[in-house]
Amino acid sequence: MTAAVQSAFAAEPKLSEATQACLDCHREATPGIVADWKKSRMAKRTVAQALKEPDLKKRVSAQSVPPGMMNVVVGCAECHTQNPKTHKDTFKHDGHMVHTVVSPKDCATCHPSEEKEYGQNLMSHARGNLLNNAIYQDMIKNINSTPVYAKGALKMEAPGNETMAETCLACHGTKVEVKGMRKVMSDLGEFELPRLSGWPNHGVGRVNPDGSKGSCAACHSRHSFAIEMARRPATCAECHKGPDVPAYKVYQVSKHGNLYANLGKSWNFKAVPWTVGEDFNAPTCASCHVSLLVDTEGAVVSKRSHRMNDRLGDRLMGLIYAHRHPKSPDTSIIKNADGQPLATTFSGKPAKEFLIGQKEYQKRRRAMERVCLACHSSGWVKGQFARLDNAIKTSNQSTLAATGLMQDIWKQGLAKGPDQGGSVFDEYKERVWVEHWLFYANTMRLATAMMGQDYAVFEMGRWQASKNIRRLHDWTKSQKTGK
Amino acid sequence: MTAAVQSAFAAEPKLSEATQACLDCHREATPGIVADWKKSRMAKRTVAQALKEPDLKKRVSAQSVPPGMMNVVVGCAECHTQNPKTHKDTFKHDGHMVHTVVSPKDCATCHPSEEKEYGQNLMSHARGNLLNNAIYQDMIKNINSTPVYAKGALKMEAPGNETMAETCLACHGTKVEVKGMRKVMSDLGEFELPRLSGWPNHGVGRVNPDGSKGSCAACHSRHSFAIEMARRPATCAECHKGPDVPAYKVYQVSKHGNLYANLGKSWNFKAVPWTVGEDFNAPTCASCHVSLLVDTEGAVVSKRSHRMNDRLGDRLMGLIYAHRHPKSPDTSIIKNADGQPLATTFSGKPAKEFLIGQKEYQKRRRAMERVCLACHSSGWVKGQFARLDNAIKTSNQSTLAATGLMQDIWKQGLAKGPDQGGSVFDEYKERVWVEHWLFYANTMRLATAMMGQDYAVFEMGRWQASKNIRRLHDWTKSQKTGK
Amino acid sequence: MTAAVQSAFAAEPKLSEATQACLDCHREATPGIVADWKKSRMAKRTVAQALKEPDLKKRVSAQSVPPGMMNVVVGCAECHTQNPKTHKDTFKHDGHMVHTVVSPKDCATCHPSEEKEYGQNLMSHARGNLLNNAIYQDMIKNINSTPVYAKGALKMEAPGNETMAETCLACHGTKVEVKGMRKVMSDLGEFELPRLSGWPNHGVGRVNPDGSKGSCAACHSRHSFAIEMARRPATCAECHKGPDVPAYKVYQVSKHGNLYANLGKSWNFKAVPWTVGEDFNAPTCASCHVSLLVDTEGAVVSKRSHRMNDRLGDRLMGLIYAHRHPKSPDTSIIKNADGQPLATTFSGKPAKEFLIGQKEYQKRRRAMERVCLACHSSGWVKGQFARLDNAIKTSNQSTLAATGLMQDIWKQGLAKGPDQGGSVFDEYKERVWVEHWLFYANTMRLATAMMGQDYAVFEMGRWQASKNIRRLHDWTKSQKTGK
Repeated sequence: MTAAVQSAFAAEPKLSEATQACLDCHREATPGIVADWKKSRMAKRTVAQALKEPDLKKRVSAQSVPPGMMNVVVGCAECHTQNPKTHKDTFKHDGHMVHTVVSPKDCATCHPSEEKEYGQNLMSHARGNLLNNAIYQDMIKNINSTPVYAKGALKMEAPGNETMAETCLACHGTKVEVKGMRKVMSDLGEFELPRLSGWPNHGVGRVNPDGSKGSCAACHSRHSFAIEMARRPATCAECHKGPDVPAYKVYQVSKHGNLYANLGKSWNFKAVPWTVGEDFNAPTCASCHVSLLVDTEGAVVSKRSHRMNDRLGDRLMGLIYAHRHPKSPDTSIIKNADGQPLATTFSGKPAKEFLIGQKEYQKRRRAMERVCLACHSSGWVKGQFARLDNAIKTSNQSTLAATGLMQDIWKQGLAKGPDQGGSVFDEYKERVWVEHWLFYANTMRLATAMMGQDYAVFEMGRWQASKNIRRLHDWTKSQKTGK
Repeated sequence: MTAAVQSAFAAEPKLSEATQACLDCHREATPGIVADWKKSRMAKRTVAQALKEPDLKKRVSAQSVPPGMMNVVVGCAECHTQNPKTHKDTFKHDGHMVHTVVSPKDCATCHPSEEKEYGQNLMSHARGNLLNNAIYQDMIKNINSTPVYAKGALKMEAPGNETMAETCLACHGTKVEVKGMRKVMSDLGEFELPRLSGWPNHGVGRVNPDGSKGSCAACHSRHSFAIEMARRPATCAECHKGPDVPAYKVYQVSKHGNLYANLGKSWNFKAVPWTVGEDFNAPTCASCHVSLLVDTEGAVVSKRSHRMNDRLGDRLMGLIYAHRHPKSPDTSIIKNADGQPLATTFSGKPAKEFLIGQKEYQKRRRAMERVCLACHSSGWVKGQFARLDNAIKTSNQSTLAATGLMQDIWKQGLAKGPDQGGSVFDEYKERVWVEHWLFYANTMRLATAMMGQDYAVFEMGRWQASKNIRRLHDWTKSQKTGK
Repeated sequence: MTAAVQSAFAAEPKLSEATQACLDCHREATPGIVADWKKSRMAKRTVAQALKEPDLKKRVSAQSVPPGMMNVVVGCAECHTQNPKTHKDTFKHDGHMVHTVVSPKDCATCHPSEEKEYGQNLMSHARGNLLNNAIYQDMIKNINSTPVYAKGALKMEAPGNETMAETCLACHGTKVEVKGMRKVMSDLGEFELPRLSGWPNHGVGRVNPDGSKGSCAACHSRHSFAIEMARRPATCAECHKGPDVPAYKVYQVSKHGNLYANLGKSWNFKAVPWTVGEDFNAPTCASCHVSLLVDTEGAVVSKRSHRMNDRLGDRLMGLIYAHRHPKSPDTSIIKNADGQPLATTFSGKPAKEFLIGQKEYQKRRRAMERVCLACHSSGWVKGQFARLDNAIKTSNQSTLAATGLMQDIWKQGLAKGPDQGGSVFDEYKERVWVEHWLFYANTMRLATAMMGQDYAVFEMGRWQASKNIRRLHDWTKSQKTGK
């Protein structure tokens, strides 16, 4: 840190009058939030200081900001009163027009490139991609409905908003809307505040009262907004740990995750840019997928990108097969050859027109390889990617076999499938098949991609997949043999 | 730290003569214990110093202690020779009357309020609550027995003391009793020491040789007794991580757990009182459930309580439904309308006379809300509790459906249930039903309560619950359709 | 640290000319590796300095090293050009004879005792022990084959090298061989490099191009080779976390693991020797199984050993029963009374001539007890080992019952077992049986051995085992009753 920067940090933060007004009450009303924010970089540096950083050290991408913001630190008012007209949750609060839900559009005041990239990111569309897809809707209905059993009949009561908010939409994002006002009595007097639906939520595809999509706080946890949070893998684990997408678990048992667990305490998670080998000795999720990395000579290894599949050619999350990445972040527009809103048919045929082509694919893979090559030889990297290709191929073949067996089960009338007008998610035998691709095939691929091999075999991998195949096979035979 | 306190710390610890005698040999005999204790606060400050702390900083609740203890640090002898008459494990050791098992009654010499509260805590009764309940006894028998299969017959050999000690009672607590004496030869000579049953053990409901219940070392790990241990969630995880009560796992994938994992290394886990937002930026288990919290102005947010359900109105751990918390820490006294020792009947009717009423319920919920409100707005907290209420309601409904299906399975003679004189735990189909409420319904509720939503859906939540429902349903149909 | 040592550290590292040449290009070519190595102790001290350490502080076991190495730090060339003649992967690289794969024989230049001990360790034979055992081969085939389902027939395509490398052999070790050369273009010019099969890999039983077995980097992660890595449990977790051998998971919920998780951040993981109670307050995997431990007086508690079963009398990993440890690290030589390559027959009879006798058994147990006794009383240790003995006995009995049931299933023709010429791994019912011993019985034993009791009951322990027993029993009955 230069002497100039140090002195800037040492100086008293310059608060806007509006922020000072917020703090006067909220220091008592919500002391935890205020104390948290006080530790943040935002609370210590003015926007002008942030804009003066040399390019590689910059954390803001704006060229300029509204004049009133320039010479103050970023406090309560700078975010919670930004863009008051587009915010339907704006309300008059002690003389200020305040909104509760800070949106990516608010953050874009200082971080427009990040907001733009994130808008092109699958994650910003996570809500619609789930809810506007008929097959996923059916899946949700079958998982989240409340069962009612009466007089020998089993019925399913559709999940309400609360249930959706505490399950799928916790990660995918709720829709936050103003549903009238409510009065609150507190030590500081009576207030009228908006009643918000879908709140609290920090899902990555949240639909905000200003119409924008996403929540920067999903990864940049409020109110200290530490870059360290976004760079450490526990943040990603909030959504990427379950059996459908056990990225974090795989990472944990990998050599990379091991190095992080054991030595990460002494790594520098604050440096911008982030120097490979010096600031950290093994990648976290962010290193490979998001961050601006440089080498010890200061040369750029990879650029910062909030369009997180910039380095991902393949979509490993198979629904139901792994495939090339979709072109558009809005995947609800996809239609495959069988008319389903899925990137592949049940027999594995990709919906090519919706997926990236070979050129873009190669570009993305090269981008990821460049990250690997900062620490590994070309032979190492070549070997690793050959295995990933193999894992994609063999896990897809395994899903094809499971699906073939399931289709025979449907044909034999042992379960009611799509051709019989049935759901593919509502029967026990179907669940066994779904777990094959949703849990085990996904896990196998992630296990190889990130080298956490427990997950390739005994921990939700090939052991479980091969067991399931035998089980489905037994069922197809049961019809034929009467067993 | 004030200068006075610093100088007190810097001074040589004042050891009692008895403790000095212990250390003379145990420095060599058990060097790990001695070194561990030397790092403790107990080894560095006299009781007199501890008593002089201002109220909010006090860690002792006694008004006074026996005179001999006042001006010495708390060493080996101060605990292991306390209350010699009530300790049946007292033995003569190198001229001193020593006991192995330090009990809550010993700790109460300096910490009487904590001991009293803990005595009113469910955890202190964990052993009896398990072993004195006929339904749980049957469950244990069916889980822990050793199967013997001979000549086509399967028999179950009841679990012995060793098996019980290494399973349920590891957490619930063994009964530690003196079973004669044994001679031990060591470098320091021959000793006669008591032979203890149920030892080692630090279960929360351990029955001690002085007749007291509990083990403070369960959370305040010996022999450094660091408050940091009790405040960090890995301590709670020793018992609260399994599929029946995955509190820690849920916490880990929550935003709170994420903040702890990523930033906790720089939090102050030693400060008393514990300042919200300043000492820590996200709660651990202790913050919400036990600790004395203050805000940055020094105002009390919540009082310390070792009666850990003081802020818990609902008991989420469903056996078999979630319900209002029991009034008494001794739950073995509960009888429901069907005569079972459970807080609800199989059809969900609560045994109201044994459960807290609405007033106490509201008081406890308000107490918890106050903790949330230190960092969250009233709208946030309202939204969160509405979801918890919904999770309790829908998960209970789901258990009701599963139980209805199970009852039909019993009626149809596909399994032998209570009406047929059978156990509800001994058949495979019954296990599927038990997992519904013991694993999945509990997990769903905890997932919402602590916002770790992976566990609400794919990770032991609604996916598994809904799959189980279909399975139970298939079985009820198999009779009717012959499939 | 003495003043002399400090000044040695402060001095500029003395690089060999060859290492200097490597660094000149690799600083740019693989900056992460170079930066990682620069942090290592190897990069900072000459071999001569290492050899001068007093015995207990020594990290090298060689009496002397080749003269050219004595007065330089251990850099790239010291390892990657060692033993050029035996290395089939040696290639000419910018004028130097370099090899990619550093093997235990290379490390033995400075660490011969460790290499010798490791060679007698089961882990160095992990590849052959798996691949040269007909029963394990059959297991692998059934887990790792790619299923193909066509025209109603299910076929299994044998796993290729890539599949094996990303699954079993990731831990057990690939065979690394030179398969010709390949040309690589880089910013620094064109290079011809060996094409290696089975690369990357750091499996503990890797077969190296010089014919040696093992990879020191499995635990001593390259290129900082921090002793802290080998001493922290996440390293062991890379291979010991899955349901077949959940050692790390059990540790995590134990009191020891809890102390490590909460307080480990302030422990000294670098000190050699490692002082019990002072450098650390609870053991990690290495403390009990590998490390040189001393007490606070400097007396040796246990010697360093890279033959990691020196303190293990029992092999808890049951295939299919727990048994006394094998004598030879090569377990593929074992034949039991039924002619199987397993240490016990399916009915539990041990292949005694291949297993250690009572005297060696007692010696090993005493060695482990000595570690426990550094922090625990003799009564504590006695109690703990009585429980382990009980867990071994009862879990083996449970496996015997499961196997008896399976044998009846085979006899009744409900599955095709060994007597009918079938595999024991290919049918669904058999998988249920295999999970009994491979997952649940192993987990139960580890849970008791390391006191993580969640795993003894609800988390892959007795709950699952007893459920499985009922299931197998139902199947045997189905034949008799027609149900």
